[in-house]
Amino acid sequence: MKILVLNPNTSQGVTDKIAAVARRAAAADTELEFITAPYGVPYIATRTEALIAGQIALEVIAEREHEWDAVVLAAFGDPSLSALREIFSIPIIGLAEASMLMACPLGRNFSIVSFSTNLQAWYRECVEWHKMDNRLASIRMLDKPFNDVNAVQSDFEDMLVDLSLRAIQEDGAEVIITAGAPLAGLASRVRDRIPVPVIEGVAAAVGMAEAMCRQNPRAPETGAFKRPVAKESSGLSDTLTALLSNK
Amino acid sequence: MKILVLNPNTSQGVTDKIAAVARRAAAADTELEFITAPYGVPYIATRTEALIAGQIALEVIAEREHEWDAVVLAAFGDPSLSALREIFSIPIIGLAEASMLMACPLGRNFSIVSFSTNLQAWYRECVEWHKMDNRLASIRMLDKPFNDVNAVQSDFEDMLVDLSLRAIQEDGAEVIITAGAPLAGLASRVRDRIPVPVIEGVAAAVGMAEAMCRQNPRAPETGAFKRPVAKESSGLSDTLTALLSNK
Amino acid sequence: MKILVLNPNTSQGVTDKIAAVARRAAAADTELEFITAPYGVPYIATRTEALIAGQIALEVIAEREHEWDAVVLAAFGDPSLSALREIFSIPIIGLAEASMLMACPLGRNFSIVSFSTNLQAWYRECVEWHKMDNRLASIRMLDKPFNDVNAVQSDFEDMLVDLSLRAIQEDGAEVIITAGAPLAGLASRVRDRIPVPVIEGVAAAVGMAEAMCRQNPRAPETGAFKRPVAKESSGLSDTLTALLSNK
Amino acid sequence: MKILVLNPNTSQGVTDKIAAVARRAAAADTELEFITAPYGVPYIATRTEALIAGQIALEVIAEREHEWDAVVLAAFGDPSLSALREIFSIPIIGLAEASMLMACPLGRNFSIVSFSTNLQAWYRECVEWHKMDNRLASIRMLDKPFNDVNAVQSDFEDMLVDLSLRAIQEDGAEVIITAGAPLAGLASRVRDRIPVPVIEGVAAAVGMAEAMCRQNPRAPETGAFKRPVAKESSGLSDTLTALLSNK
Amino acid sequence: MKILVLNPNTSQGVTDKIAAVARRAAAADTELEFITAPYGVPYIATRTEALIAGQIALEVIAEREHEWDAVVLAAFGDPSLSALREIFSIPIIGLAEASMLMACPLGRNFSIVSFSTNLQAWYRECVEWHKMDNRLASIRMLDKPFNDVNAVQSDFEDMLVDLSLRAIQEDGAEVIITAGAPLAGLASRVRDRIPVPVIEGVAAAVGMAEAMCRQNPRAPETGAFKRPVAKESSGLSDTLTALLSNK
Amino acid sequence: MKILVLNPNTSQGVTDKIAAVARRAAAADTELEFITAPYGVPYIATRTEALIAGQIALEVIAEREHEWDAVVLAAFGDPSLSALREIFSIPIIGLAEASMLMACPLGRNFSIVSFSTNLQAWYRECVEWHKMDNRLASIRMLDKPFNDVNAVQSDFEDMLVDLSLRAIQEDGAEVIITAGAPLAGLASRVRDRIPVPVIEGVAAAVGMAEAMCRQNPRAPETGAFKRPVAKESSGLSDTLTALLSNK
Repeated sequence: MKILVLNPNTSQGVTDKIAAVARRAAAADTELEFITAPYGVPYIATRTEALIAGQIALEVIAEREHEWDAVVLAAFGDPSLSALREIFSIPIIGLAEASMLMACPLGRNFSIVSFSTNLQAWYRECVEWHKMDNRLASIRMLDKPFNDVNAVQSDFEDMLVDLSLRAIQEDGAEVIITAGAPLAGLASRVRDRIPVPVIEGVAAAVGMAEAMCRQNPRAPETGAFKRPVAKESSGLSDTLTALLSNK
Repeated sequence: MKILVLNPNTSQGVTDKIAAVARRAAAADTELEFITAPYGVPYIATRTEALIAGQIALEVIAEREHEWDAVVLAAFGDPSLSALREIFSIPIIGLAEASMLMACPLGRNFSIVSFSTNLQAWYRECVEWHKMDNRLASIRMLDKPFNDVNAVQSDFEDMLVDLSLRAIQEDGAEVIITAGAPLAGLASRVRDRIPVPVIEGVAAAVGMAEAMCRQNPRAPETGAFKRPVAKESSGLSDTLTALLSNK
Repeated sequence: MKILVLNPNTSQGVTDKIAAVARRAAAADTELEFITAPYGVPYIATRTEALIAGQIALEVIAEREHEWDAVVLAAFGDPSLSALREIFSIPIIGLAEASMLMACPLGRNFSIVSFSTNLQAWYRECVEWHKMDNRLASIRMLDKPFNDVNAVQSDFEDMLVDLSLRAIQEDGAEVIITAGAPLAGLASRVRDRIPVPVIEGVAAAVGMAEAMCRQNPRAPETGAFKRPVAKESSGLSDTLTALLSNK
Repeated sequence: MKILVLNPNTSQGVTDKIAAVARRAAAADTELEFITAPYGVPYIATRTEALIAGQIALEVIAEREHEWDAVVLAAFGDPSLSALREIFSIPIIGLAEASMLMACPLGRNFSIVSFSTNLQAWYRECVEWHKMDNRLASIRMLDKPFNDVNAVQSDFEDMLVDLSLRAIQEDGAEVIITAGAPLAGLASRVRDRIPVPVIEGVAAAVGMAEAMCRQNPRAPETGAFKRPVAKESSGLSDTLTALLSNK
Repeated sequence: MKILVLNPNTSQGVTDKIAAVARRAAAADTELEFITAPYGVPYIATRTEALIAGQIALEVIAEREHEWDAVVLAAFGDPSLSALREIFSIPIIGLAEASMLMACPLGRNFSIVSFSTNLQAWYRECVEWHKMDNRLASIRMLDKPFNDVNAVQSDFEDMLVDLSLRAIQEDGAEVIITAGAPLAGLASRVRDRIPVPVIEGVAAAVGMAEAMCRQNPRAPETGAFKRPVAKESSGLSDTLTALLSNK
Repeated sequence: MKILVLNPNTSQGVTDKIAAVARRAAAADTELEFITAPYGVPYIATRTEALIAGQIALEVIAEREHEWDAVVLAAFGDPSLSALREIFSIPIIGLAEASMLMACPLGRNFSIVSFSTNLQAWYRECVEWHKMDNRLASIRMLDKPFNDVNAVQSDFEDMLVDLSLRAIQEDGAEVIITAGAPLAGLASRVRDRIPVPVIEGVAAAVGMAEAMCRQNPRAPETGAFKRPVAKESSGLSDTLTALLSNK
């Protein structure tokens, strides 16, 4: 089983964090490949940036889709997940999606905790798209400026723990999701400081991708993720042109 | 008041249909400009194509945002509406959005009727994003192949009326929305053949844009449509690079 | 286009405030007529008073329905809107309805802010009737006694701004609706003191009525707003008797 | 315990049917008084007629409120129930409300079956006001003209049974509510022809009123049914004027 | 009419409190029998204990079902109510269920107040099973250790009143349900200290059981509470074996 | 990693089917143990039988909890899952739960297809408990009598495929869940006859249990699955007595 873990951000440092968690989580016979976005932004925080990242993901996956059995889309807001699912045949698992699904057996609800209020609107839309708002206790975000996305995890660890405790006490959260690829690895480290389960999202996504591959689901011939009919286009990149034309 | 009506499809013929309806609907002192997507696909039907169209809309509006008071995004699935709203200061009104809002005072629910089952999944996500699924009676689509998107309106008129009648009788629809920019003008023409109100979406969008401009709403400093903070990027077009960097 | 703006309260001073906003908002070719309730209460605050106002609206509109193209019902709780819609053929637009519909494109939710806790239960039912509770962040009300409904707007302006700020900070409101006909004009005046869009309800209702007239929707032959069959009655006013008997 | 059973329709024949059921259902020590609307329509079917009936109920109850311990409002759509509840101190129980509450322990959902499609929109709003739409399987109505509301029960008995069977088979109804005061007594008669429980609404309302009186609930000082503050009015009947002024 | 009031806890003292309230609430011609659980736990607080109590209720009722017209299951979380309803023919009314149904006419929502946070998760699932979460303002619990469940009512009376006041002020509760059989009788005693209606749950359940018996509902042949088909089993008690085999 | 797969039915033949699927699905280093219920019913179909099975699961797991890292509860209705989760420290994964979670990335909704209408009410409550009704397209069941639960899979294969096709065509199902432990293995066999993904539930549960173990979630100190405080009991089995007393 070969899984692409795609970081749609341009930060290699974030990819390194993701890779460390993914490797620990994967089964012995799972092969992982990691790709960092070749262009775009260092970390996606908004719908606009997610829109751009979605197109990057389209192009990256289209180039070599046949080489992987599944893709983990390693950005918490699951950018353009529905587009990727309809156009590609292999399973695509989102980081937010896997985190939320894994949280379900662990509590009746969850809170999402992350490092920047700028992410809030995007994350909320992601939760709603997954129809998981009936499980959402709250989204809580730090409101601190930062210089280096690679350092937010270590710089803000204590504040993120505090924020998690407030989500538990004030919002009744039964599970904490530390959201955002730059926080990969944090959940395992703060496990003993937070009195409810904390989801390690990348591990959840790898586990879900593995379980999904074992299901070996067939491509749907109907419904939301049916492969679109071929479409002629103009002015797009060769990769996108070929993808849309089903070639 | 100057409004851009942006057709994110590449079909000039569709733009012509849109323009005819928009001009009839606009107030005397409203100036309209029509732009057809400079690249992309002839008509957007899927989330993948909508993703691409969203980026096109970003670039087209970013070039000359200061020249307009509002934008009508003239594709029914409202591609990337949330991204456009956060990044631009002027009101952006979606065709689906305006149609659904205009339907609310006319009935307790509405059905969306259009010309291709390929559109269904995208439209449904659009309705859900607008939190209008509590008003949705059904989405009904023709399941017919067609050669020319410019001709679907005339070729399928009778079938679309029949589909609307079935939505009324079988799904209890109280208002019909004939969805999709290629159907612009159809609602007015079939008005007397359908026993409930039929929404002319482009007219609804122009009316909503005009009313919104008269509200002259200030830009939000918080919430889902707050302008994102500046972000450095790499490898994007000059327009997108400047847009993200708030320049 | 001729629109009746009906103030179902007996306060002429409130009508004057409404008229000032409506005239600024209307398109050049829109003719407005203003009527103040000939009997009833100075301002409606409760379901009981709204029940009485609904009957007043029935009688006032029934007298001269053919003279108008649309009616704006200028009381925020939209008293008896469903009854008015089924029995009359011209569009009837409620103040609460138009405010909420106009708020939708401006944010993911809204808070309603007004001058008396006495209004709260009525407003909440109104929001629920419109199926807009999935957009409602909160209803916040002043809890101050007042002597003159005409003076609440000026006397309480600062407190209403403070209440709006609390709705934004504590309830996450992304749009503020300053509710109640006695507050007509307030939104425009406090626009710069509140960091999210504030809806001017009367302007929204006039804009929505204009856009609706341009749709020229046909009367429904089925559904919630189908004209009722004629009914004989006894002991009612001549106007109501004639209205029920479809004469 | 003395309960007013108020038929807000003007049909004495309907009151007689209601009374027969109510007397069978009441406890030995419950005293019942029956009043037929002194003016209005023979049977309420629409929101407009319900609006008029609501005002009639206001006046009838206001005249002698102190003589009763509770009121059963014997029209299925529960006209103006929220107004009556806020303005009066004694419990007011609606026919629809009691039927739906009694249906809850008997099945996971219910269907409402009645004799005229004209009632449908009003009934649906009633179900929604009671927040019981999460229990509603369907509303099914006969679409037959009739001359005499007193005869619908006997004339349409077989058709109403058939309609109930279809609600069970096609909509999955687990309880049937035969709705509308003119059908009082039908549920008991058709009990053995319908394979799920059938609610006798008037009996449910009397039982609920009795149980409520035994609770002896105090008047709320806050919330939706708090007594409104006194309000001056003009041009209303002496009864309404006194009621609004809290005299 | 003969009603079994079954306390599925083993505390005779709690049964005594229940009996005192039930006797006051019952109609003159209602005969009540009280049974305390012959084994199990002194008071049920968790899903595990409720699971055990459900099996106890199965056995107790199965022994003598034909002797009663209805059962009041006198533990607030309504343990195994759906199982009891499908397997027995007589109406089974839950304490939580009756309290919530009785609360509906008294306010637009209710809060549940009780004496131990240990009960919270079980109560919440109970509210959700009854589909009453759309009416739930909050569940508020004391967080105090106690030695004797028979004394919680008197020991904690003041704290429970305070908790109720906070539910009203902070959660907007319009009705208070003092939950848990050990609190039987409290509602009547604190009635004047809480400014909204307080439900006496045992009285509500008796009243609902009486009203239900007067409906004399037939056993459903379909739906959620249809009697299961006979099932062979092994290793169960004679009572359960016979019950499952429909003997 | 050692996982108990507990069949709470008494049918060894069903356990064999479960084991065959589980072994194929498990990772190389996962050790599986299979236990068949020592008493109870051959297959659980109702809430009453699920209640009994829940108690069996309590006892079976309590005996040797420390020997396993996780439990797969291999009955589709997830009997007493919330009780098991609060009282045990190791993860307990339900068959229905895992199937539904695995279905989420594969489509926007799912239908549950099984072999007996007797299961319907129980399954529906299970879906609702998991808050997955917003994803449920339909539950469709065969209405055929059968003699041997071990043979339903082979006897009814064609009918179950037909039922799945109807769920897709008539209910819009995008994923099919073939529900019930007796159907273990069916999904893989009919994969090519159904044009959307079909979930193999036992494989989903094993995969979810493995992924959950890799999360190594800590026991919650608050929330719905917090370990209950110790409780004295009387008359229960030694195992249950010890379990409740936290010994």
